[in-house]
Amino acid sequence: MFGALDHIGVAVFDLEAAISLYEGSFEMELAHRETVAEQGVEAALLDVGDSHVELLRPTGPETPVGRFLQTRGEGLHHVAYRVGDIQAALADLRERGIRLIDEKPRTGIRQSRVAFLHPKGTGGVLTEVVEPAAH
Amino acid sequence: MFGALDHIGVAVFDLEAAISLYEGSFEMELAHRETVAEQGVEAALLDVGDSHVELLRPTGPETPVGRFLQTRGEGLHHVAYRVGDIQAALADLRERGIRLIDEKPRTGIRQSRVAFLHPKGTGGVLTEVVEPAAH
Repeated sequence: MFGALDHIGVAVFDLEAAISLYEGSFEMELAHRETVAEQGVEAALLDVGDSHVELLRPTGPETPVGRFLQTRGEGLHHVAYRVGDIQAALADLRERGIRLIDEKPRTGIRQSRVAFLHPKGTGGVLTEVVEPAAH
Repeated sequence: MFGALDHIGVAVFDLEAAISLYEGSFEMELAHRETVAEQGVEAALLDVGDSHVELLRPTGPETPVGRFLQTRGEGLHHVAYRVGDIQAALADLRERGIRLIDEKPRTGIRQSRVAFLHPKGTGGVLTEVVEPAAH
């Protein structure tokens, strides 16, 4: 069902400091920056192999990542798996009783289509499925 | 420096239930099971693309993962990046001022060599570097 571990999402207070760590100390290439208004985040993608680290700074306190930072502090926020057909993947997951946050895909970073599964159904792990945009 | 996102580590209370989720609902292949005494965990590795999900059940409450579960509950525990030469990677990281938990590699799952970086130096993300065993 899942083709690859697409990315991990990391919640940060200071996006520039985080980019400096991953780009400078960890030598990952900064591949993309974007404010994803629908998710309330300013995001930076860094390449590691065929996967990415997605650094997330909330655009305000009353956003999902803003609330996460207030209660948990900085750290791992979610994991995303790559799929070829997000509609089919969501249908399969629904059929298996997996609780979805997003019943339909929405637009993610770099024009990808994304949906989140509910962490209560995935052992506390906020899990995303992502269908990258066609190139 | 890092060749790939090797795995994410997930702390769980019930290892069989977690394997059932990842193997059954997410269709990941269960590749390996092992009790890693040095880390105080019973672990299961599931394949996703070239990466893995590492499910971790503590062998007791007074272990790192046991303490994590008591304070944070189930969820994402760490992220691991694959390196070709862990000694060289640790030397580079040290030179860049990254705080290490393990100054020297220790034995991880499947005879890999692993070392953890301190989350206080990595934006709250418990980060592992792993050099897989030669096949």
